Amino acid sequence: MASETVSEDKYQKGIKYLKNMNPDSFRILEENLEDLAPDMARYVAEFAYGEIYSRPGLDLKTRELVTIASITTLGSAQTQLKSHIHGALNVGCSPQEIIEVIIQMAVYAGFPKALNGLFSASEVFSERNVTIEK
Amino acid sequence: MASETVSEDKYQKGIKYLKNMNPDSFRILEENLEDLAPDMARYVAEFAYGEIYSRPGLDLKTRELVTIASITTLGSAQTQLKSHIHGALNVGCSPQEIIEVIIQMAVYAGFPKALNGLFSASEVFSERNVTIEK
Amino acid sequence: MASETVSEDKYQKGIKYLKNMNPDSFRILEENLEDLAPDMARYVAEFAYGEIYSRPGLDLKTRELVTIASITTLGSAQTQLKSHIHGALNVGCSPQEIIEVIIQMAVYAGFPKALNGLFSASEVFSERNVTIEK
Amino acid sequence: MASETVSEDKYQKGIKYLKNMNPDSFRILEENLEDLAPDMARYVAEFAYGEIYSRPGLDLKTRELVTIASITTLGSAQTQLKSHIHGALNVGCSPQEIIEVIIQMAVYAGFPKALNGLFSASEVFSERNVTIEK
Amino acid sequence: MASETVSEDKYQKGIKYLKNMNPDSFRILEENLEDLAPDMARYVAEFAYGEIYSRPGLDLKTRELVTIASITTLGSAQTQLKSHIHGALNVGCSPQEIIEVIIQMAVYAGFPKALNGLFSASEVFSERNVTIEK
Amino acid sequence: MASETVSEDKYQKGIKYLKNMNPDSFRILEENLEDLAPDMARYVAEFAYGEIYSRPGLDLKTRELVTIASITTLGSAQTQLKSHIHGALNVGCSPQEIIEVIIQMAVYAGFPKALNGLFSASEVFSERNVTIEK
Repeated sequence: MASETVSEDKYQKGIKYLKNMNPDSFRILEENLEDLAPDMARYVAEFAYGEIYSRPGLDLKTRELVTIASITTLGSAQTQLKSHIHGALNVGCSPQEIIEVIIQMAVYAGFPKALNGLFSASEVFSERNVTIEK
Repeated sequence: MASETVSEDKYQKGIKYLKNMNPDSFRILEENLEDLAPDMARYVAEFAYGEIYSRPGLDLKTRELVTIASITTLGSAQTQLKSHIHGALNVGCSPQEIIEVIIQMAVYAGFPKALNGLFSASEVFSERNVTIEK
Repeated sequence: MASETVSEDKYQKGIKYLKNMNPDSFRILEENLEDLAPDMARYVAEFAYGEIYSRPGLDLKTRELVTIASITTLGSAQTQLKSHIHGALNVGCSPQEIIEVIIQMAVYAGFPKALNGLFSASEVFSERNVTIEK
Repeated sequence: MASETVSEDKYQKGIKYLKNMNPDSFRILEENLEDLAPDMARYVAEFAYGEIYSRPGLDLKTRELVTIASITTLGSAQTQLKSHIHGALNVGCSPQEIIEVIIQMAVYAGFPKALNGLFSASEVFSERNVTIEK
Repeated sequence: MASETVSEDKYQKGIKYLKNMNPDSFRILEENLEDLAPDMARYVAEFAYGEIYSRPGLDLKTRELVTIASITTLGSAQTQLKSHIHGALNVGCSPQEIIEVIIQMAVYAGFPKALNGLFSASEVFSERNVTIEK
Repeated sequence: MASETVSEDKYQKGIKYLKNMNPDSFRILEENLEDLAPDMARYVAEFAYGEIYSRPGLDLKTRELVTIASITTLGSAQTQLKSHIHGALNVGCSPQEIIEVIIQMAVYAGFPKALNGLFSASEVFSERNVTIEK
């Protein structure tokens, strides 16, 4: 049986992606879920990263930017939004690109959600001493 | 007074963008709104395109892909989603890139919204005789 | 026993409101639900109209306008939105006031939902031969 | 006039349900609303519990689980989600059943909302010294 | 390597569940996605059914009822809602239980979404000649 | 060129509105955005206030009440909701009118969002020593 059809491999593949993209967020997630729902952390690794992020056809920078667009539009998942703003910076998105995506959400998701997205970005940028070029 | 501070210019700038990105959708929108709320069509040209899409810092292909992510996440605006799938193709996104963005929304917005996004893409691709490379 | 504490009276009170505000919508709703969930039609009469719309402290015109704002923001309940646009006209809101509320939703709920709200208003206005004064 | 048609009785019926299901949450709700909107606490007792939860045709355990599914899907009402996780435990749902419902929401509402639902469950379980059997 | 860790098996396991729960919906889904995004149909089988629905700890009837609660709350995925109302009937939920879940959503997701959920149930029940016992 | 077509004037017009409606919120917003996305504060002044709130056809009190309805329905933007509850009081809405709008949202957006809207109103009223007349 070919190794790419094996769940174990999906998990390992996901973990490999996560180590590049967002190791801290995943470690915290695993710790938070270990007594409650450890399978959920496995699904994040296996399905979200091992299956979806590892698909060809779209580079990781664009994958993180569309995720930021989606979570800003949800409006109620600031922890996950901040985690993906970290992820976007980790895979090479510039702070300005991230800000541009969130500003654009004012048109599609409304100003309140765009503003709250910007405040989340501001927290991440402060934490990492990232500044926006003008 | 510098010309870039003039609303008239924002409108003209937006129309210039719309002519490249999505001329048919905007013409239909203008016709639908002309007796009801013509200012709303003006805001689309002036604010969404003249102001937001014309910002530097993010290319138009990425701008269309994050818009597709956002409207797929909203889940209830299939007319606008199809309009932006047209727009994405018009500015050079490949069908595969569009599909990748919508598939990824299964993780962030859930499977029902991602599936409905794919069905909207399917309609646009059929209309334009676009096929996905395998 | 004071009459205002009696459910029967809440129902009758709600029906009285509905007869002024939106008799057709409620009759269609009752017919659609009579074999499936007749209590749901009763809750609309009793709770939504007999309890909430009949509260003092806000006039019916404002109550219909805030309902239009809320349903436009939901984005996925066009039948109910059109029913309340009828209701708003029935209690004396002008077409222009209704349009103003929906346009304003572009800021808070995003352009796609505001546009879809306007298209619903357009259908109701056409049906009733209502025109917007310019 | 039959007693079941009397609002006072709906309220008493709702309070009876609330005393079994979630007495603490309702007491806090009543205190928080007493100067602001005491009718809103009455509607919770009378409509949500006296009318809906007291309907035959679905047991209270299932009613709490579908409520947890709905509020997890809303994504932005963690106080109410935690209140209903308490309620679910109070009417006999196992911690594992609650976790299963929330994990399943990853498919329908997306991973971020499911993860935030799990974190709310974690807080409630810690507070009550509840542990998940493995 | 243990067979339960193999993706191929997750897929087969999911298909086995789907054959009992909702064979028609899945066949239509596969056909609709085969030229566009065949992996998405695979994820439905593999992740949603092979992974989530096949988890122990919650019976299939309850799993379908919480899914109906979630999709009614989304408000904009009537195709998927109808598919899961079929699924719920197929695994043994009574029409009345389904209606009870949707009515309850009036409290948590608002009346418009609950009403639209009931209309979807009505379509499925008509199609299958299902009637509600009174 | 007529002055009303000039963006600079839209900005000044918006600032004039903001000074009456919500000077503190805007000042805080501008400070929070100045290093991150100063254009976003400009869009709030220029588009939301200079363009939308300054439209004829709806008085400012009604504009604030429909905004409160919309943001309560979003459910996840309590900072912006509180800002507009301040704004509503500043333009002459009574506390009771604000409470009535939010209570009514229980019907359209569900009880959890209405309750969270009331808690936000409670915080604003406490801060301003506003009391509800009974």
